[in-house]
Amino acid sequence: MNNFKIFEEEKITQFNQYIEEYLNKIQCHPFLKQAMLYSVKAGGKRIRPLLIFIILDALNTPISDDAYRVGSALELVHTYSLIHDDLPAMDNDDLRRGMPTNHKQFGEAIAILSGDALLTEAFKVITTSESLAPALKVKLIDELSDASGPRAMIDGQVGDILGEKTTYTLEQVQHVHEGKTGALLKYACLAGAQLANADKKQQELIVKYGELFGLAFQIYDDILDVVGSQEKLGKKVHKDLNENKNTYPNLLGLKGAQDKLDQVLFQIDDVLLKLEAQGTKIEFMKMILKYFKVGKI
Amino acid sequence: MNNFKIFEEEKITQFNQYIEEYLNKIQCHPFLKQAMLYSVKAGGKRIRPLLIFIILDALNTPISDDAYRVGSALELVHTYSLIHDDLPAMDNDDLRRGMPTNHKQFGEAIAILSGDALLTEAFKVITTSESLAPALKVKLIDELSDASGPRAMIDGQVGDILGEKTTYTLEQVQHVHEGKTGALLKYACLAGAQLANADKKQQELIVKYGELFGLAFQIYDDILDVVGSQEKLGKKVHKDLNENKNTYPNLLGLKGAQDKLDQVLFQIDDVLLKLEAQGTKIEFMKMILKYFKVGKI
Repeated sequence: MNNFKIFEEEKITQFNQYIEEYLNKIQCHPFLKQAMLYSVKAGGKRIRPLLIFIILDALNTPISDDAYRVGSALELVHTYSLIHDDLPAMDNDDLRRGMPTNHKQFGEAIAILSGDALLTEAFKVITTSESLAPALKVKLIDELSDASGPRAMIDGQVGDILGEKTTYTLEQVQHVHEGKTGALLKYACLAGAQLANADKKQQELIVKYGELFGLAFQIYDDILDVVGSQEKLGKKVHKDLNENKNTYPNLLGLKGAQDKLDQVLFQIDDVLLKLEAQGTKIEFMKMILKYFKVGKI
Repeated sequence: MNNFKIFEEEKITQFNQYIEEYLNKIQCHPFLKQAMLYSVKAGGKRIRPLLIFIILDALNTPISDDAYRVGSALELVHTYSLIHDDLPAMDNDDLRRGMPTNHKQFGEAIAILSGDALLTEAFKVITTSESLAPALKVKLIDELSDASGPRAMIDGQVGDILGEKTTYTLEQVQHVHEGKTGALLKYACLAGAQLANADKKQQELIVKYGELFGLAFQIYDDILDVVGSQEKLGKKVHKDLNENKNTYPNLLGLKGAQDKLDQVLFQIDDVLLKLEAQGTKIEFMKMILKYFKVGKI
């Protein structure tokens, strides 16, 4: 097993323990807690917290309790957005990560409320740190509300829903995806840089990396929907094509989308070279890009 | 017009301007903004921000921009909770404050998302204050997530929904209501005391006032549902009785609920006497209790 694989497995195992313990300690109705834990424990790649850990490692900063906290905040927001996205009034999905979606398991009312609860706790998990300086807590909360609220993620979701009735330009698709998916991934990189107290130049490059990572992620996700199988992905595929969604393959063709992905990965390499020249340890920031190798699915 | 009426009208007019301007400045999809503003502008009594203003007045503290901010945070949370509560999967209400509910006006998907957006902005409106100390911002955000998340408000909502299938004891009803309604009202008083930098003893008494106020509010609301009219309340009435909900009148009878309300108001008077003895200006804290005069509906 290579260094990155070891790092990834170790950190994600610890992260999963951390977030489950955090949720378990909340005093609330057991059915609500069960619904919250159900979706958080359903897993996924934990790519948002992993990005924080990778940035900290790249900046030679120990991965402290606070990194797990901010990673939890991100994963709570991400999980709530999936629960609400899956609702009948939204994407109407029955399956998520190979399991019944939250509303299929607990009913719609509890799914709505457990999503609301996870979103609210995302801010609490930052306020309750015993070591972060108050000013940094405020910054992290402010940026998290930017990334996850109407200024980014929810804006993207609204654009996505309303776009089903119309055909977007490539620019419009990119704007929707920057909000819907990109903002949280970018936040992960920004938060990592801030937790590591990176200098201004490093922080700018890391945020640029985060932006491009988010773009690659969405193009890749759109491609997966075309070439992946339900068995491997644990959710319905070919959904986007059926519904005439505004995706990269629908706009550019499958080959065009793959070219676009390669182009973004090339831009990421350029950012990584600049970071390396500044003394940043880019090994894991490079290794995580393996996710985007379409051939390997 | 008495002093309180003048104070109330002036502050609420300014508050309405403040919260609308805040929302108008958010850069997001116009349809999302329209949906957010629709429910926030629908009005209501603004009792949560008003409580903050009253506590500040009682403690001889000017009502600053920060008071409007924290009031806005509360009203954003309150409004989001109403939007989600009204959804078909929850209370399934078509009418709120005499107008179509958010999902009737904008569709369910946008209603869910605009609720999510308002909740997320509630934290942002606190982080962006230019005058509050970071440590106080963190405290106010921490307590707001306590009051509005799974530890209180959402816990109460879940208890309420699950309670429809069973009969609660008076104690259980009180627990549900403490979460569902009481926590935000108590938060308003606590936040007011903290913004005014009240001493420990004063803060304790003000929080006690907030707790009792919340209890009175819920008993009164339950009574209104029995004796009020749809025309005056702008929403469906007699809903609770029809659905065998766990309300005070259903548990204690109408007379019993009115007695209970009187008893709580008596306890509030006791707290007010203690506050007065400490030099707190209780005039408006007393005047706002006029809301609970059932005969005047």
